[in-house]
Amino acid sequence: MTRETITQRDGHVYEFGPEMDPVYEAADGESLTIETIDSLNGEIQTDDDLLDAIPEEVNAATGPIAVSGASPGDVLAVEIEAVRVAEDRGRVLTAPGFGLLQDDPEIDHPATRITEVDGDGESIDFEGIDVPVEPVIGTIGVATGGETVSTLTPDDHGGNLDTTDVTGGTTVYFPVFQEGAMLALGDAKAAMADGEMCGTGAEIAVEVDATLSVIENPAVSPDRPLLDTGDAVKTVASAETMEEAVELANGDMLDLLTHDHGFSRTDAYLFSSLVGGLEVSQVVDPQVTARNAVPSEYLSLPF
Amino acid sequence: MTRETITQRDGHVYEFGPEMDPVYEAADGESLTIETIDSLNGEIQTDDDLLDAIPEEVNAATGPIAVSGASPGDVLAVEIEAVRVAEDRGRVLTAPGFGLLQDDPEIDHPATRITEVDGDGESIDFEGIDVPVEPVIGTIGVATGGETVSTLTPDDHGGNLDTTDVTGGTTVYFPVFQEGAMLALGDAKAAMADGEMCGTGAEIAVEVDATLSVIENPAVSPDRPLLDTGDAVKTVASAETMEEAVELANGDMLDLLTHDHGFSRTDAYLFSSLVGGLEVSQVVDPQVTARNAVPSEYLSLPF
Repeated sequence: MTRETITQRDGHVYEFGPEMDPVYEAADGESLTIETIDSLNGEIQTDDDLLDAIPEEVNAATGPIAVSGASPGDVLAVEIEAVRVAEDRGRVLTAPGFGLLQDDPEIDHPATRITEVDGDGESIDFEGIDVPVEPVIGTIGVATGGETVSTLTPDDHGGNLDTTDVTGGTTVYFPVFQEGAMLALGDAKAAMADGEMCGTGAEIAVEVDATLSVIENPAVSPDRPLLDTGDAVKTVASAETMEEAVELANGDMLDLLTHDHGFSRTDAYLFSSLVGGLEVSQVVDPQVTARNAVPSEYLSLPF
Repeated sequence: MTRETITQRDGHVYEFGPEMDPVYEAADGESLTIETIDSLNGEIQTDDDLLDAIPEEVNAATGPIAVSGASPGDVLAVEIEAVRVAEDRGRVLTAPGFGLLQDDPEIDHPATRITEVDGDGESIDFEGIDVPVEPVIGTIGVATGGETVSTLTPDDHGGNLDTTDVTGGTTVYFPVFQEGAMLALGDAKAAMADGEMCGTGAEIAVEVDATLSVIENPAVSPDRPLLDTGDAVKTVASAETMEEAVELANGDMLDLLTHDHGFSRTDAYLFSSLVGGLEVSQVVDPQVTARNAVPSEYLSLPF
C-alpha cells in the first residue's frame, strides 16, 4: 500500500464535534504521514509579529481522518512513529489575557521570540541558547460524544492536550465516540516545557508518521486518552482545575491497575502512591491537563 | 571533628514556628547524621493497624538544629549526602477524610499495607511486587518568619513538602528567617509517587547524612525552598491550590533565570516554557506543593 500523506490543505478543523466529515478514510492498521502547520497559521514570522489576542481560529488540526471499522465503544490506537519539524523556525510568545503569569507587570504581553531551527534540525535557538528539538503534538483528538469543542480546549476526546509525551515513540489511545473515530491533529511545538507556562511552546509545522488501529471490545474502556511512551503508561485528564484533573487521572489509573494486577481499588490506590506519579501537561488552556504515570515494569495496557 | 548523630530522642518538633529551641548547634559547614522515626510514631506495624483519623502529633521532625552564623536574609544549604532506611518495614495507608480520592466509595478508609524491606535494603514489597527503595524526606524545614505551622503543612519555610527530589544527592536551599535557621526533618518514605495521592508513601524511619552551610549575602534571595538535584534546579512552592503553587514556582524560576542569563523577565518566562517544566510534589496536605524544574545545563544557582 502506498503511504498516503494528508496535509492541512486537504482539510483541517478548528473544532472537534460529534459530526465531522472526513478528508480521508484510512484502513484499520494503515500508516500515514500527516502534515500540520503551526498553531498560529504561519502569521508569526519575526520577533516583531505580535499576537494582540488569541485568534478565533487557532490550532488548525489536520483531518479529520476516519478509520475504517472504528465504532463507539472501541479504542483508537495512534502509534506515533516520528514527528519531524517541517520549517526553519518556531515561535514562542505571550498574548494579553493568556498564560500562567498573565498578570505579572514585568512581563510583556504581547511578546514574540522566533526560535530558528539549526541546519541539521536537531536544535532551536533561543536568544543564543541551543534547545534540543523534542517535538510535541499539542492538539490531537477524535470526534466528541456530543459537545462541539474548540481545538484550543482539551477534554475527554483529546484536543489541546499539550502533553510533552505526545511525540515519536508514543502510542496514544482514544475512546471512540463516533463512527470512524475522526482523528485530527496539529499545534505542534519544536520544544515545550511541562506546563506550557507562557501559553505556547516553540510553535512549528511538522510531519507526523503514524499508524492508526482499531481495538474492538477493549478489556478496559477508557473514558479519556491514555499514553504508552514505552517507559511508562500514563492516563491523561483535563478539567477546570488542576485538582479535578489529577483526581480524574488517578482514578483512571486505578482502573488500569485493578485490571492488570487483580488489585482491589484500595490496593491500586495505595500502589499508585508509591511509583511514578502525577505530572503536569499544561496549566494555560481553557481546561488544564494532568497525567498519572506508572512505569511500564508495573503496568501493561490490556490492548 | 567527630560526626555527630542527632536522633528523634534528642529532640523533635510537631510544629515549625518563629521561636524554636535548638537541640544541637552545628558549625557552619558541619556534616551530621540525623535519625528520624516514621511519620506515625511507630504506631502502625501490621496491616491490621488502621488509622481512623490523622493524629494530632504527626510528622515528628528531628531537631531543630541551629547552624552557627545563620541570620535572617541568609540562605541555608542542606546538602543531603545519603538517606538510608533504618527499619525493616514501611507502611502505606489511607485514613478517613484524607487523600486525593477520599470520596471514592470503592476505596477503604482506613486501610494499611505494610511494605517489608528486603534483606539488602534495596526494595520494599507491595503485595508481592518489588518496588525499589528510593527514599524521600517528606518534612524538612526551618523556623518560620512569624506563623506557627504544623509539620503536616508545607509553606515558604519548607515543612511537609513531600517532594521526591528531597533525597541523597540533592542540596536543598532554605531562606533563613531566624537566627540559627533551626533545621528539622522527618516524615521519610522508602518510596513515594509524585503526588502522594493516598496521603502517604511507604512511611519509614531513616538516617540522613547531611552537611549544613550558611550562604551570606546571597546574590538571589529566595522566598521559598530551592533544590539542586545535580540534574536540575527546581523551585518549590506551596499554596492553597495547585494553580497558585505553580504560579509561585514559575515566578521564582524567572528570578533565577533572569539572574543567571541576564534575561528580561519576559525572555525568562518564554524560555521557562521551552525546557523542563512544572512538576507535582503532593496534592494531599493542607497546602499543595509544586515545582518548576530547569535542567542544569540551562541554569546554575548563584551560590
